[in-house]
Amino acid sequence: MTTDVSAKMQRDSEGRLRHLITLEGMSRDELTALLDLAQFYVRSPGDLPARDQTLSGHTVANLFFEPSTRTRVSFELAAQRLGADVVNLDMQTSSRVKGETVLDTIYTLQAMHADILIMRDAEPGLPAHVANFVAPNVCILNAGEAHLSHPTQGLLDALTIRQHKPDFSKLKVLIAGDISHSRVARSAWHALTTLGVGELRIAAPDDLMPKASEFAGAKRFDDIDKAIAGTDVIMALRIQRERMSSAQIPDEATYHRAFGITVDRLKKANQGAIVMHPGPMNRDVEIASSVADGPQSVIQQQVTNGVAVRMAVLATVVRNVQSRRKLK
Amino acid sequence: MTTDVSAKMQRDSEGRLRHLITLEGMSRDELTALLDLAQFYVRSPGDLPARDQTLSGHTVANLFFEPSTRTRVSFELAAQRLGADVVNLDMQTSSRVKGETVLDTIYTLQAMHADILIMRDAEPGLPAHVANFVAPNVCILNAGEAHLSHPTQGLLDALTIRQHKPDFSKLKVLIAGDISHSRVARSAWHALTTLGVGELRIAAPDDLMPKASEFAGAKRFDDIDKAIAGTDVIMALRIQRERMSSAQIPDEATYHRAFGITVDRLKKANQGAIVMHPGPMNRDVEIASSVADGPQSVIQQQVTNGVAVRMAVLATVVRNVQSRRKLK
Amino acid sequence: MTTDVSAKMQRDSEGRLRHLITLEGMSRDELTALLDLAQFYVRSPGDLPARDQTLSGHTVANLFFEPSTRTRVSFELAAQRLGADVVNLDMQTSSRVKGETVLDTIYTLQAMHADILIMRDAEPGLPAHVANFVAPNVCILNAGEAHLSHPTQGLLDALTIRQHKPDFSKLKVLIAGDISHSRVARSAWHALTTLGVGELRIAAPDDLMPKASEFAGAKRFDDIDKAIAGTDVIMALRIQRERMSSAQIPDEATYHRAFGITVDRLKKANQGAIVMHPGPMNRDVEIASSVADGPQSVIQQQVTNGVAVRMAVLATVVRNVQSRRKLK
Repeated sequence: MTTDVSAKMQRDSEGRLRHLITLEGMSRDELTALLDLAQFYVRSPGDLPARDQTLSGHTVANLFFEPSTRTRVSFELAAQRLGADVVNLDMQTSSRVKGETVLDTIYTLQAMHADILIMRDAEPGLPAHVANFVAPNVCILNAGEAHLSHPTQGLLDALTIRQHKPDFSKLKVLIAGDISHSRVARSAWHALTTLGVGELRIAAPDDLMPKASEFAGAKRFDDIDKAIAGTDVIMALRIQRERMSSAQIPDEATYHRAFGITVDRLKKANQGAIVMHPGPMNRDVEIASSVADGPQSVIQQQVTNGVAVRMAVLATVVRNVQSRRKLK
Repeated sequence: MTTDVSAKMQRDSEGRLRHLITLEGMSRDELTALLDLAQFYVRSPGDLPARDQTLSGHTVANLFFEPSTRTRVSFELAAQRLGADVVNLDMQTSSRVKGETVLDTIYTLQAMHADILIMRDAEPGLPAHVANFVAPNVCILNAGEAHLSHPTQGLLDALTIRQHKPDFSKLKVLIAGDISHSRVARSAWHALTTLGVGELRIAAPDDLMPKASEFAGAKRFDDIDKAIAGTDVIMALRIQRERMSSAQIPDEATYHRAFGITVDRLKKANQGAIVMHPGPMNRDVEIASSVADGPQSVIQQQVTNGVAVRMAVLATVVRNVQSRRKLK
Repeated sequence: MTTDVSAKMQRDSEGRLRHLITLEGMSRDELTALLDLAQFYVRSPGDLPARDQTLSGHTVANLFFEPSTRTRVSFELAAQRLGADVVNLDMQTSSRVKGETVLDTIYTLQAMHADILIMRDAEPGLPAHVANFVAPNVCILNAGEAHLSHPTQGLLDALTIRQHKPDFSKLKVLIAGDISHSRVARSAWHALTTLGVGELRIAAPDDLMPKASEFAGAKRFDDIDKAIAGTDVIMALRIQRERMSSAQIPDEATYHRAFGITVDRLKKANQGAIVMHPGPMNRDVEIASSVADGPQSVIQQQVTNGVAVRMAVLATVVRNVQSRRKLK
């Protein structure tokens, strides 16, 4: 299943968002509407209104076939803060072990009247596959799919940039690190391209650079010092130790020297440039600790925006379900 | 502890349901009242009323000594939808490891004012044993006990059959597969016998057939083709790979040929016969995929009824506690 | 970091409780206020008022780096009963595996607007370390720290004693067992000393006795029979099998003979003496089963008080945050 098909199938017959599987193929207006609603949900605890009950009476199920405490908790809190009932299924030890197909697990949750299924999986294609089969009132949200897609991460990255640099047409954005394996990079690229970012750059060691057919329109660099020069936004990606050797980089210190975002390198970016990271960070590997904690870092703001973006997505798909139901 | 004792001890001094440990010994009126209340709770999400608060201020604890995502989530959602606080205890890695007796765990939860304890265990006798010791306001619900008892499964099976075939006296019901190890089969047998099913059949390979002293009144078959002829309800049971060898059936394909519910076999049943499975299914082993997804399958409806039945049981035992309290 | 520093840093600039890391250095008035509020929250289920909403709109995160179902559930129920949203993070398998520092996990939860972080860790110093870095509106509660501190346990022990023996000045209290490794003993010692207990005794085999510099003011015994004579409160501590050998006690039966609280030994205590245990118990090792279940045991009452004490701590730190916010 290509992501183009995913983009089409995630809308209902009226063209409204039904599932969120990929940002590819979404329009600028659609993305902007989600970011605007997310911005509404960005509050400090002291500004919290009376409990929002948009999802009251709705059930959200977290199905994580790949572990991720951080993303799971972000979705869980987003759902709770909208009044939903939430259940967590640790799918690593669960039904697949017993030999039940994923689709049967989905049917089971649907039959229990779960309204929104949040899925993360290391294999590509599962969210779109599942979305083909669920009932009209059930929504599938992709919480991370192989190296391909992590749409709520792309949205929270776009929201964070917009809060600091609202005029996207003039922006130069750099994504640096293990691009080839990164769903974060792909979803950011989709969002930022659609939202009209001036220039998108990707920088990676040769072995971690994606195929030429991917990241259309992005400028490619194998030298991080050249890549960072003149940028307004720097997004460092998490590198995994096992990728380093494939990238012919023997250890973390070598990677840091070759590709880490350091204080010195950051000086080559434009004044006021912001530094992002999807987390969890390897401090002093892909990013210097002093940069992560420095004045240009917006990493914690990304986390805050993550909950707000997930609230916006949950609220949007539920309202679209309700609106479809009323039409009948 | 015999199940006869269980049946008596699960009632309070007024004869009302206090714990749910077994369906054996429950009266037709008791079962019918639970099914009627469950039918009230069967709703599609769009028909959900304002949040039912029957269990508001009550605490439900899930104690699963044996893993079961499906049953745990069903109970968890049932409790949440009645407004309860719910805590999950993964008992496989927990107190037994630390050497605490199960009874001390129960006393601890009781002292924390847990009102309803839902238990699943691979060993027989634990729910009834525990029920002997808890305080008058604490209810024990059996969520699966060895090969002996799975009362909410028996209720959901009865409810599903009643929705399709309300006149039980004329029904021929077949349970097929690994009868000897099945708590599902035993609880279904208890429920259907009490509710006056016309004829109950069990079909299994010799090695998976229960002792002659069990399943009184059921007709026994070792040939699935003969067993299925003229039936109105076919319930396929999950077979576990390790049982096959003991049943001298070397592999899944052989089991499917010998005992699987296939499209061809289903034609021998009465017109309009329904096919059931407690889940999780081994597709194309005990049941053909085309049957599981076919027009006569009510498998997903069983899952929906499972939540409703558990809501009915939770609401019933809590109301009985409250009514005992008022008498004093 | 010494606990003295902890004591100072757990207060805000107005001297009110902000974090709860240790009982050491807290004043008698502070402890009494917490116990009084906890006493208000001690209710049987039948006496429950309408849902207390003190923590409504607040998020509580359980971060257990060391497993403890009993303490985690106690905090979880306390938070739920005050209307909080609760998320559980099993930190044994989570972020530390991925190489994220604990502080980054804390910053992430803080950025998600978690208001109260409940931590348990086998290493000393983590709660105080973390408390140094969190935002002014975030509270750290220590749910067990190495052998050093378990403040809510100390409070629940003090509350339980106060319910039975309100005049502390005349009390003789014995803590018996593995004192040297026990955070329970240290927190009880802090609480009871501050609350003015007449006499505190500790009894342990030589190898399990703490250094002379610790437990100032406590009378030390290596003979349990002499230690128990004339006491009003006996607190038995959990012994771990691996400690026994270090204490040159080869097995559980030998430990029981040498140091177990038995019916015969209990007769040497004062009439009406109460017996306590923090749980989980090793029955017939550090405490005879007949004593644990006997008329002088208040062990289950301790568990009930545990939830109430945790509600009191949660409510207190949240109110103090709100009061700081209003001042600005």
